[in-house]
Order: sequence, then structure tokens, then C-alpha cells
Amino acid sequence: MAATAGKPIKCRAAVARRAGAPLVMEEVIVGPPKSDEVRIKIICTSLCHSDVTFLNLKDPPGIFPRILGHEAVGVVESIGDNVSELAEGDTVIPIFAPDCGECTDCKSKKSNLCTKFPFSVSPWMHDGSSRFRDLNGGTLYHFLFVSSFTEYTVVHVANVTKIDSTIPPNMACLLSCGASTGVGAAWRSANVEPGSTVAIFGLGSIGLAVAEGARLCGAARIIGVDVNPGKFEISKRFGVTEFIDSTSCGEKRVSQIINEMTAGGADYCFECVGNSSIVEETYACCRKGWGKTVMLGVDKPGAQLTLSSYEVLHRGKTISGSFFGGLKPKSDIPILVKKYTDKELELDKFVTHEVGFEDINKAFDLLLEGKSLRCVIWMDK
Amino acid sequence: MAATAGKPIKCRAAVARRAGAPLVMEEVIVGPPKSDEVRIKIICTSLCHSDVTFLNLKDPPGIFPRILGHEAVGVVESIGDNVSELAEGDTVIPIFAPDCGECTDCKSKKSNLCTKFPFSVSPWMHDGSSRFRDLNGGTLYHFLFVSSFTEYTVVHVANVTKIDSTIPPNMACLLSCGASTGVGAAWRSANVEPGSTVAIFGLGSIGLAVAEGARLCGAARIIGVDVNPGKFEISKRFGVTEFIDSTSCGEKRVSQIINEMTAGGADYCFECVGNSSIVEETYACCRKGWGKTVMLGVDKPGAQLTLSSYEVLHRGKTISGSFFGGLKPKSDIPILVKKYTDKELELDKFVTHEVGFEDINKAFDLLLEGKSLRCVIWMDK
Repeated sequence: MAATAGKPIKCRAAVARRAGAPLVMEEVIVGPPKSDEVRIKIICTSLCHSDVTFLNLKDPPGIFPRILGHEAVGVVESIGDNVSELAEGDTVIPIFAPDCGECTDCKSKKSNLCTKFPFSVSPWMHDGSSRFRDLNGGTLYHFLFVSSFTEYTVVHVANVTKIDSTIPPNMACLLSCGASTGVGAAWRSANVEPGSTVAIFGLGSIGLAVAEGARLCGAARIIGVDVNPGKFEISKRFGVTEFIDSTSCGEKRVSQIINEMTAGGADYCFECVGNSSIVEETYACCRKGWGKTVMLGVDKPGAQLTLSSYEVLHRGKTISGSFFGGLKPKSDIPILVKKYTDKELELDKFVTHEVGFEDINKAFDLLLEGKSLRCVIWMDK
Repeated sequence: MAATAGKPIKCRAAVARRAGAPLVMEEVIVGPPKSDEVRIKIICTSLCHSDVTFLNLKDPPGIFPRILGHEAVGVVESIGDNVSELAEGDTVIPIFAPDCGECTDCKSKKSNLCTKFPFSVSPWMHDGSSRFRDLNGGTLYHFLFVSSFTEYTVVHVANVTKIDSTIPPNMACLLSCGASTGVGAAWRSANVEPGSTVAIFGLGSIGLAVAEGARLCGAARIIGVDVNPGKFEISKRFGVTEFIDSTSCGEKRVSQIINEMTAGGADYCFECVGNSSIVEETYACCRKGWGKTVMLGVDKPGAQLTLSSYEVLHRGKTISGSFFGGLKPKSDIPILVKKYTDKELELDKFVTHEVGFEDINKAFDLLLEGKSLRCVIWMDK
């Protein structure tokens, strides 16, 4: 048993003290894991757009001081009571999507929406308390049940997946959120068939991960759509075969162009922007008879999606969303790890930058400047 | 070869001469089938709400004079050139949904939306002409590629399915449209699993056919919703196990009641009314994680469906429509015929009335008065 087991650990964390301000490197106290929890020594973490979004949220669900970060890999330092599926030394990925393994949803192959621990942007652990304090005794809030911008964090076992430790940490951390969400959307949510045609609206890291997933599934054509024509070159590496600059379509709508290119629409269409009017365009270029539209982008709260009743009724198309790519964390993430070690899933190309923990704010700058897809932050560098 | 083959046939038909007026029994001339067409001697036909809708349409796509009717069974009297899959004497069901067997959609197991002959409410045969004339030489228009309110009709082979002649004609005709659409929506569009919970909004004949399909698929609970509490008794015979009178829900929405009854929503939800706001209610009581909402009701032209972007994105539910119940006419209808002869599919309970051809306007009265589910019209009685 670790010498630190059962005791608080003092370690360094990058704390979000104020909305929009750089993270503050400081020493914090990380309490021992309670029942059904584990304490994890983070090896590396990566930066996702949601971290930026929540750093900039002045009003709830924005809350401060908070330890952000939710893409990571680490090693179990100690376990709380009642933990049997994990042991000290296990290499693990904390994942914001809970997987309790007990509720109807977790037991079903059809759902990845845990009922026992519903996903939320709550600032607490599942039991409504925090494991973090600053050196003045003040509470630091959690983020997405993960909070990885710290050398040590505490996570409920429902949010931890054990993985094969042979995958390099700077690849493993990507599977916590972004890469998995996109790859999963193509693989699990849409179940893209070999030889099919795919359209992806928005070539940010999620859209590129969808392309990677579609490529893995054997799609024959992957049409990427973005407002930035500079995205085409990089997107080719993720499997995108054709590109539409949505700002240069003239009088035509993007859906019209895709319908012409594909003689009737793409088999699978993904919205990775987070704009309901783009969802409607996505649906409009989805092949009649069997086309699937999958939403991944998060629109503003209260946003509504308007579809033609006739189109839904008579065109044989389905529309659905994709939460964490439709993946069941504890069973599907180990499969993605294996796909990486088998050299099928190419995670390397997502990592454009790597920095040491002290330089975490650089990762934010790089993302905001549009320079990075994923910047990996190494805790021991 | 029939003595009448290749020649026009003079026979009796019930012609829709004016919008909203009773059909007129008169003698008409039915031309011989052209290439890829067959002429069918109708044995019996049944009345569907769409016939009433089109009889009452003053403006396009309403058009007169027209021979309505699209649920029927008959015997092939003669065949046109190039017809190999059907022969004189075959028992056949004409079906409004084309199935050419050659296009990408018809060859695919995933689509029932023929591309070679797109479904439409055109007043013509697929070649843009009519096979019907009145005794003054005037053109009589076709309806849904079937036109069954006549002793003889001409139908393109893409719209004809050969069936086993042992099924009684007054049962077979129901498989042309209504019963198949509802049963198919549960069986093919939704693929209802044994033990599941189903909710059906609207217990007209389509909604009852969905219940029958869900019962066939082994649903454990079938919740029916209607504005008319008198529907519960009859709906029990179709498998409905629980009933909600939507006019007596007080402050609660129907979706809220169903969510409470089912501890989180029904697995499969069907809208059989044709009202976008009811589709939204249907979607709202669909189980998170795997729930499927299937639209069958036809709303007004231009109607729009408004859904919460968050709900679609985060709740793991899908929404789609169902054209002809998702059935592929030539392969699925013979299966439904067999399910009837095997005493699994109970078609008998749909037939509430039977009349002779001369009394066809009684069938309209019975439907409009809400007295009949299906009234079968026998041509030789």
C-alpha cells in the first residue's frame, strides 16, 4: 500500500481562480478517496475546448475556484473502501461519462447514459462534496468528475477505466474525451459501413476525430466542410477526401453541393459545430432511405432544432445525438486502446504540441490562437 | 391467354367526379396494360382515410375525374410486354409504394424508397399517361398508381406484389396500405424488441395497426393515447394494455404521465395523428439512451417539427419517419401474408364492415361517422 494511502496529499495544481484569467499554479490539498473512489497520480493531461469554455463562464455553471481538466491518464495511487475493480498501480483513464455498471443503462448494450450517476456539469463529486482544498482551507471545485489539472485527483470508480499500460501516456489521455467522442460517433453512434460516404460539418478536433473514425470504419468518401479552407490540408491526414469551403459556395447551399457530389446525399452526416441551423443543413444532405444524421456540436442553451415534418416523415432518414460518441467507457475505451496499439487508430496526429505542467497556460493560448489540435501537458516536465 | 388480353375492357367503376361529392357508379373503359404493366381484376378493395382526403381536396393534388382506391387484392387478367415476374391468374396486391427491384434503394435492405419510380400523388401512371377513359372518351385520372375503385385497373409491375392465394381476399386487401403501414412501423421501422414498452399516440386504424405490430413483436406494455376514451375497449383487442385519455390529464402533459408510468419513458413511441406538436410530445416520452420515436401521421404541408437541441444531442434518442411502415413491398408483404395464415397477424379485427361495390358510398359514410375501421368493398357483390 502506498505510504500516502488514507492521508491527504499536498501537490501542485493549476487552479482556475477567476473567469477568463490564466490558471494559477499553487499547492493544494487532495483528500484521500472515499468509498468507491480512487486517487490518481496524473501522468499527463490534454486540453479540450470545454475547459476553455468553462474557464470563461462568469455565471453558473461556471464556478470558481475550480480545478479544470478532463482529458488525462494516470496511475492509481490509492483506493477507497469498497473498490474492487481497481488497484494501486493500475494505469487508468478518468472519463467524464459515468459507467456504474449496475443500472439498466450501463447493463444495456444500447445506452451509455448512466442512470445511477447522471452526467452533469456539477462542481462536486457524486456525493456532493469536494476532495480539494487550497492551503487556506478553502474549497476548490471539481470539473466533470475528473479535474485533471493537478498532480493528484480523486475520481469515482464509475468514472475510471483501466487500460493496458503499453499505450504511451500522451496518446492515452486523448481517449478521455475528444478523440474518443469523434471516433465513437462514427463507430458506435452511426456505425459507418465500409464503402460508404460521410459528410462532416466542422473540422475542429472533434470533426477530425469523426473523420479518423470514419476512415477506420472503411468509409470510401469523407467530405469535410469548414469555413476555413486551410483545414483541408490537415484534414487529409485524418481521412478527409474532399473539402467544401462553406464561405465560397456562392448561391448554393452546402447541402445542395453535397447532394450533387454524392448523387443524392451522404450516408452518414455529422454536425461538429454546435449550431442548429447547421444541423438542419447536415440533415438536408443526408441520403434518403437510410441516411443518418448525428449531432455532436453543443449549441447555446435553449437552442431549438427545426426540421420539415414532411422531410422527417417521408425521407427515411434518422437523426440522433452522440454523447461521448455513443461509447460505453469501460468496455469500449480498452478496444480503442487496442486499435491504437494495433496501429489502426492513429492518435499521434492529434498531438500538435506538448508542454510541461508549469506552462499549462501556453496550452490555452495555443488552442485559442487556433494553432493546436491537442496540446499534451506533462505533469513531471 | 385471356380473351380480353390486349383489348380495352368496359367495366363498372366508382368515379370521383367532384370534390366532396359521392362517387358516381358508371361504365368506364380500361385500356390494355402497356410495357411493364399488368391489368388486374379487382376482387375486393377497402377504404382508407387517404381516399377520403383526396376526394375532399378541391385544389391540387386533388384532381377530378379520378378513380380513387388503393387498398385492394385482385387477379392478373393480362400482362403487358416485358412482364416476366407476373402471369395471368396470379393473385396480387397493388401497392402505392413502388418497388422496381433495380435501383440502389430497391436493391438495398435499408431503404424502401424506390428511386426509379419515386412515390408521388401524381394523377398518372409512371409513364405520364392514363389507362382510364369514360364513355365520352374523357380521361379519368389515376390515384397512387393503384386506382382500385373499379372492376379492372392497370398497375405498373413495380407496384404489384404477388401473394399466396390462400389468404381470404377481404384480409389480403388490408395489406395494401393501412394494416401493413402500422404493423411495419413496429416491425421494420422501429424493430420493437420482445418485452419492451411502446407508446402510441392516436388510435385510429394506423395506430391500432402499430399496436398489432408491437403485440406481434412481443412488446410487454402498449400504452395507447387518444382524445376519445371510447377507443380503449377496441384497442385492447389490438394489444393495447394501458390507456391515456389525453383530454383528461389535468395540469400534466401526456409525456409526463408516460414518463411516470414507465419510470423514464417508453422504448418505442409512435405518432399516428399527424400533428407536429404531438410528435414533440411523443419524443418527450421516449426513453433516454435507446428510445426511438417513429412518425407516421401526415401533418399539413409546410409543417415544421421543433425539438430541443439539447434533448436531441444529450439524450440518446432517435427520431425518424416511416413510409409504408419501412416495408419493402415485394419481400415483406408475402411475409405478412404468411404471418396471417400462420394465425400470428390478426387482420380480421380490422374489418368492421363489408359492402357490395354498388354501396361503396356507404363505406365513406361509415368511415366519416367514425363507425368503421376498415370497410371491405366486394366487387362482385
